[in-house]
Amino acid sequence: MAKSNSRSDFTRDWELSPIGRRILREGRQFSTVRRIVVAARKVFAHRGLAGARMDEIARVAGVNKALPYYYFRNKAELHRFVIETMIAQIAAAMGSPEVLSMGPAERVRALVNTTFDFVVHNPAYPRLIQRELMSSGRRLHWMVTSYSRPLHKSMVQTIREGIESGQFRDVNPDHMVFTIFGMIMYYFATAALASQIWNRDVWHPDNVAERRRAVLDFLEHGLFLNPAATH
Amino acid sequence: MAKSNSRSDFTRDWELSPIGRRILREGRQFSTVRRIVVAARKVFAHRGLAGARMDEIARVAGVNKALPYYYFRNKAELHRFVIETMIAQIAAAMGSPEVLSMGPAERVRALVNTTFDFVVHNPAYPRLIQRELMSSGRRLHWMVTSYSRPLHKSMVQTIREGIESGQFRDVNPDHMVFTIFGMIMYYFATAALASQIWNRDVWHPDNVAERRRAVLDFLEHGLFLNPAATH
Repeated sequence: MAKSNSRSDFTRDWELSPIGRRILREGRQFSTVRRIVVAARKVFAHRGLAGARMDEIARVAGVNKALPYYYFRNKAELHRFVIETMIAQIAAAMGSPEVLSMGPAERVRALVNTTFDFVVHNPAYPRLIQRELMSSGRRLHWMVTSYSRPLHKSMVQTIREGIESGQFRDVNPDHMVFTIFGMIMYYFATAALASQIWNRDVWHPDNVAERRRAVLDFLEHGLFLNPAATH
Repeated sequence: MAKSNSRSDFTRDWELSPIGRRILREGRQFSTVRRIVVAARKVFAHRGLAGARMDEIARVAGVNKALPYYYFRNKAELHRFVIETMIAQIAAAMGSPEVLSMGPAERVRALVNTTFDFVVHNPAYPRLIQRELMSSGRRLHWMVTSYSRPLHKSMVQTIREGIESGQFRDVNPDHMVFTIFGMIMYYFATAALASQIWNRDVWHPDNVAERRRAVLDFLEHGLFLNPAATH
């Protein structure tokens, strides 16, 4: 099994994120906002932006049904807030000084591990982000510009460095990035499928660990030039 | 570049499928049904079941807005028809006598190629199926029972045979199946993302061919025990 190089701590919530701090500064009722956001993640992940209803979000949050409209102007604003707080958090972890100081092989493993760690603490994330990525190109624009493109470019650069240093095979770096995320995001976004096919709980820690090992193992053999030497 | 072992012909539409034949037998107006279904694929892929409106499907199809209701009782029935005709077609190609008679390495490549061939002719398929796989477990039941589980088991068996015959590494076969589909489905389901990041048309034949090569290359190194010997 490949060792985990960087287990990020996602047990804290977004209260410490820049957006969480802004809410605190603005004096909104943080605990109520938090309940609404946690409920909105579940409802949006399950039904998508079009299928979700603010009433259901209020009910799941256990708050008066006027409150989601009080804190967020409308459903679209709440939805964007939910997506952006998550992406900002995972992007910050992936661009941390610790990760950026690593060599290519260590860094690729750290990016995989960071994604797994984040997904474990945010099981709604893969479906939320997948639904957003399947939306129209225009709606995607802010996310691509602020998060997806910089992250993609940074990962492509890491893979290029690994190829140049002789640690990685001569792969197409752009495709490798999509392959890495595809292995993780498709699996967890379609967890209901895997659970029914296997009759097991995909989210059980043992099963998440098994998936993590499978992805890292496949990556080491598919990307690394000399898998045995990298352990 | 890995050679394609089985290029399936998906240029014909579902008129030759069992469901298409049933419609013809039932005397429904085939050309109108076809226009509605082709329009429904696009609208459902773009908006999902909850977000799609029968009126928009009629408009895209260029038919009177009463007609989708005439041929399909409601939106849910049309949606299921759209999904089922597609899955039935790809499942038939994957379970063809030609594919079933292949050895493990050849067959894994054929399954990848079949998926690519199908997606090229049905660009709505990755998003349609991805949205369905992210729906609630209950709604998934028919698809898992009739299509996903048998296909998964058949692929797991193929990978096991390859491990036993010494062609494949000792991987976890269940995870390998999800990895293979993840590499393909995530990429095409999020084609809008890839297009914006790269500023290129993901669906251009040259770019589809590039993705196909990247997936087969990664698979040969990640799965095959001796990649060089398999060409």
